[in-house]
Amino acid sequence: MPAAFSLRLRKTDGRALTLYARAPFEAPATPAPSPSSEVIDANPHLRWHPLRGEWVTYAAYRQHRTFLPPPEWNPLAPTRDPARPTELPAGDWEVAVFDNRYPSLAAGAHDAPVSIVPTAPATGACEVVVFGQDPLEALGAMPLARIGLVLQVLGERCRELAARPGIAWVLPFENRGAEVGVTLHHPHGQIYAYPVVPPVAARMAAVAREHALRHGRGPLTDLIGRELADGARLLYRGPHALAFVPACARYPYEIWVAPIEPVASLESLDDAQREDLARALKTALRKLDRLWDRPSPYLMAWYAAPSGGSPGWHLHAQIWPPHRSRDRLKYLAGTELAAGLFAMDALPEDSARALQAVDVSAELA
Amino acid sequence: MPAAFSLRLRKTDGRALTLYARAPFEAPATPAPSPSSEVIDANPHLRWHPLRGEWVTYAAYRQHRTFLPPPEWNPLAPTRDPARPTELPAGDWEVAVFDNRYPSLAAGAHDAPVSIVPTAPATGACEVVVFGQDPLEALGAMPLARIGLVLQVLGERCRELAARPGIAWVLPFENRGAEVGVTLHHPHGQIYAYPVVPPVAARMAAVAREHALRHGRGPLTDLIGRELADGARLLYRGPHALAFVPACARYPYEIWVAPIEPVASLESLDDAQREDLARALKTALRKLDRLWDRPSPYLMAWYAAPSGGSPGWHLHAQIWPPHRSRDRLKYLAGTELAAGLFAMDALPEDSARALQAVDVSAELA
Repeated sequence: MPAAFSLRLRKTDGRALTLYARAPFEAPATPAPSPSSEVIDANPHLRWHPLRGEWVTYAAYRQHRTFLPPPEWNPLAPTRDPARPTELPAGDWEVAVFDNRYPSLAAGAHDAPVSIVPTAPATGACEVVVFGQDPLEALGAMPLARIGLVLQVLGERCRELAARPGIAWVLPFENRGAEVGVTLHHPHGQIYAYPVVPPVAARMAAVAREHALRHGRGPLTDLIGRELADGARLLYRGPHALAFVPACARYPYEIWVAPIEPVASLESLDDAQREDLARALKTALRKLDRLWDRPSPYLMAWYAAPSGGSPGWHLHAQIWPPHRSRDRLKYLAGTELAAGLFAMDALPEDSARALQAVDVSAELA
Repeated sequence: MPAAFSLRLRKTDGRALTLYARAPFEAPATPAPSPSSEVIDANPHLRWHPLRGEWVTYAAYRQHRTFLPPPEWNPLAPTRDPARPTELPAGDWEVAVFDNRYPSLAAGAHDAPVSIVPTAPATGACEVVVFGQDPLEALGAMPLARIGLVLQVLGERCRELAARPGIAWVLPFENRGAEVGVTLHHPHGQIYAYPVVPPVAARMAAVAREHALRHGRGPLTDLIGRELADGARLLYRGPHALAFVPACARYPYEIWVAPIEPVASLESLDDAQREDLARALKTALRKLDRLWDRPSPYLMAWYAAPSGGSPGWHLHAQIWPPHRSRDRLKYLAGTELAAGLFAMDALPEDSARALQAVDVSAELA
């Protein structure tokens, strides 16, 4: 996989934009566009939740958006008409990353308000990652080399964000589909850079550390060994990566994608690992779309180690489709949200069998 | 508030049914009904999630339901036609509790399957609490004395379930509205009795214990003192109970309802506390319905202390409506589900002001 070419730009409202491609490309003839030239004072703040012992982030300015785009307008498409600028220029770029216009975490956060609970500036970053120029080409439908480029870009952004002072954890994720609340259907992901290790990552780091101390390797490294030996839930096994329905799935068609050897973060993958990981990811996403022959909504999170490393951590993506069957969604309700104990009607072995039966090999050429 | 009268029955398929009322009532003339006489072998199991360090419960038999009711049939209404039995008999009962026909936790769970992750029988209970006979009378629209009876019944069930061997935590909750996945619209709640303290409750117990050690009282007791002194987010303040939008709300119109003095559990409330708590709860639920003059969906969880008690615990309900505005839902996505760090567009102070402006005093007579 060739190294990516990139070009850093600055929008007129001050936000950063970086374009990426696998081949050299020309800088856009016009300045980096923005749907509005108004400079937003992105000043989110954190409040401490004293019962759950966790932070919540507030960005009230999001309610006061002055720019209300028409419903059919796509701000993630390249700008075609300079009179109606989008977030992105025309040109030969393949992947683009820019600062979210209304972030819930921001580098410039300052002067958190006084409250009856502790508060702090919500320092961090919220970036948008546009996977391609075609609004109809889903991540899973892209050529393998393009998926590899997306993984490479996510890794580069993670490396840069994690190196900023005060960043404790970086989460690349994709929300796909109206069922999970997405309003912009142009294929894109997001990256959140947090000033604290959020609850889920903190718990995973503590569990991995404990497991590594006892067993000399992390819990996912162990689980992958067992999934490979068992084979009942495997969807893809390559030389360096795999995709599987985990034995402990919390969503009916949950899939995990990971390198076989433990790697802490996306930016630590070598080219061969990244290439095979792209194939594992494409296999997973194509199987979900082909299962019922329609675009599958999902939430995909890339779990990399907190900044500074975490013993026993093993990079992977968890993909959570909200469907429990073709026509029914799994809603998170009482036991999941209030107790945190997930209840499943489907056995992972049955879901894996259904996904194994979906042949996507012809699309992986 | 008078003590409730109750009658214990057993359905032909073995499930328990208890009827409650504030006045003595006659036993039904016919045996306790069930939509199907087929005995279900409720045998859910737990699997250990090795990365999150938590249990997940699986009840695959739910997929193989033999009984498929017609879509308009209401199994929570009293049985009118003996040829089409529902879950409940006719009669003068006011509140009813019965064992869920397809529980994800069950007293008889046995012989968990072998997996590549640790497994265990999903011992516990899942009960359905029918709030009344009228399918159109929402909990918040009931007379105060009936709401008090519901709280009393929840407390009695919690006491009995918590006393069973191996039960670590009991959660009464209500999922209301199609937006949160409810398919049966007859007003009802549920009670889950867990064999372990689930992640959210375990975290809350650890945080409360730590706070109590340092400050001599629990974090909610402290917060309530500050909310009462501040007043900006109060929706109701009575002699023994209050309702407020917490300063750390994670949902735009989140409301907490609690006794002012720390009480560990519903069954520990005295009559005056329960009566005022019913008024606080009714105020909260009526304001949500009146805010946009339509039934507000919500998830309501009653957080009581784990079995055996927990230092610093303070009983309360958290009510989470999914709406962020009249026409838009707040979806839990990347940052909330994958990181556990909630992002809010709305300030609790603004939501509280909107709810304060909704006058429901005439309905509280």
